[in-house]
Amino acid sequence: MGARQAIVVDWGTTSFRAWLVDLDTAERLGEIPSGRGMKDVAAAEYPAYCHAMLSRWRERPDPPPVYMAGMVGAPTGWLFAPQPPLPVSAADLAAQVVAAPGLPDAWIIPGCRVDTADPDRVDVMRGEEVQIFGALALLDRRDGILCLPGTHSKWATVEDGRITDFHTFMTGEMYRAALDATILGQGVPASAPWDEAAFLKGLEAARQPGGLLNRLFTARGRRLYRDLGPEAVPSYLSGLLIGEEFRAAAEMAPSADPVPLIGAEPLRRPYEAAARAFGRAKQWVPAADATVRGCIDVIRQRP
Amino acid sequence: MGARQAIVVDWGTTSFRAWLVDLDTAERLGEIPSGRGMKDVAAAEYPAYCHAMLSRWRERPDPPPVYMAGMVGAPTGWLFAPQPPLPVSAADLAAQVVAAPGLPDAWIIPGCRVDTADPDRVDVMRGEEVQIFGALALLDRRDGILCLPGTHSKWATVEDGRITDFHTFMTGEMYRAALDATILGQGVPASAPWDEAAFLKGLEAARQPGGLLNRLFTARGRRLYRDLGPEAVPSYLSGLLIGEEFRAAAEMAPSADPVPLIGAEPLRRPYEAAARAFGRAKQWVPAADATVRGCIDVIRQRP
Repeated sequence: MGARQAIVVDWGTTSFRAWLVDLDTAERLGEIPSGRGMKDVAAAEYPAYCHAMLSRWRERPDPPPVYMAGMVGAPTGWLFAPQPPLPVSAADLAAQVVAAPGLPDAWIIPGCRVDTADPDRVDVMRGEEVQIFGALALLDRRDGILCLPGTHSKWATVEDGRITDFHTFMTGEMYRAALDATILGQGVPASAPWDEAAFLKGLEAARQPGGLLNRLFTARGRRLYRDLGPEAVPSYLSGLLIGEEFRAAAEMAPSADPVPLIGAEPLRRPYEAAARAFGRAKQWVPAADATVRGCIDVIRQRP
Repeated sequence: MGARQAIVVDWGTTSFRAWLVDLDTAERLGEIPSGRGMKDVAAAEYPAYCHAMLSRWRERPDPPPVYMAGMVGAPTGWLFAPQPPLPVSAADLAAQVVAAPGLPDAWIIPGCRVDTADPDRVDVMRGEEVQIFGALALLDRRDGILCLPGTHSKWATVEDGRITDFHTFMTGEMYRAALDATILGQGVPASAPWDEAAFLKGLEAARQPGGLLNRLFTARGRRLYRDLGPEAVPSYLSGLLIGEEFRAAAEMAPSADPVPLIGAEPLRRPYEAAARAFGRAKQWVPAADATVRGCIDVIRQRP
């Protein structure tokens, strides 16, 4: 039976999740909801840790194969799996999986990259590519623009089931850096409640000219002389940065079409609010659903 | 004789400098080159520390007055001196100095701010305003656009000796945050030599579309698959951020005129290189010269 089952592992910096899946029905047969993130496991222990976590599904005569996407293939991960250049389909990924050393029948899906003649038009993703294929399957689509919010948000263009272009925006990481490492975060409480009004002010500020280095500093002026209390700063900055992302994404892949959003639950509220404000609201696809379904679609294409 | 002399203090977060000046000739009669920054002195000790540092010039029958610009007037400084709105001349500042509590005949120059009907067109400066008046005097000008590179760079428009507009760009602070608090700084040596070629690549990348959140991530793609070694990342990011500043500044105050640069010596090389690349190269004015001269010009306008 193992031939029609597989194990999908989502092993990130701070978390480990795994699913046993039926490849014919795309059903989830079992889940390991939590384990240690890669940063909490020594690199030399990756095979043994993974083996131990998955033993309940692997200790049988015909064990299902293991497929992993995301950070495990990064230079700082289990094994560096170089990203193939675009365009990339699920079948292309299936043809280029890399064996994970130390664990039998375990495979790393390699991500993908933009590679052009322009010296700075290079871009990379790792993990989001399976989420894109998963979202396309869940939404029954083969074309369009998709947004994957996150530490490094991705906006991807898909044509006839292939990823043909994408842009990364360092939205989540610059949000954290602005709050933690600049004057804008001074005196801001560590956990402030979501403030929709402040978020919308930030979105509006992002639509004005000046560029991000200037727009960010409006948080300082507004706090000193206007309407921004310390507890409203995180929501304002969130609106400012997500607004800049939506503004720039529309400039890079000109379109006003609604975009499906594929992300983790904490990003749902701000990204849905931004999509509404920019007239691009569409479905929300939970990132884990997209990961599982995308891995299944890649595995189905394996020889 | 004290009536025609004054003490100018430049007290920042990390440094303290003071000059005894002749108000008639604008000559420097003496200098205290270094002392403790505000972050290394308890707030309650500011008057006593300042008094002790300046005692050699103040212990005489007719002690010269003390004038301070910059962070001493910030909410976290000696006393919050609210910034008057633009337009502002040296005479306007002279009329609005604030007595520094605890030290006789000591005054804080209050900075200035942009205040408009537009909810997010508010901007603040504190310290740069005296540098602007000082640079105008040193360059014998009353009009034009000036650039003051720094943690928070300022681009100011001056008309007939008054500051009429300015924009802040968080260039220096976001450079530090990107290196210290994001993936872009991973594995980058703490002190990397200046790399002009990498700086120019960053400048060029900043001229391309995509917005800063996307442009920054080119440092990641180029490092993984192109031409950017870890030791070149700081210069590349410096070029990218300063390039974004020049791009946005030209958008906000449309002009291709050369701009005088007023800043601290470590910023001279990158900002002069950027000004050349954008065809806007002009004089360099050391920040300390501009501070001393600007304070003198404000003090001269005191009743």
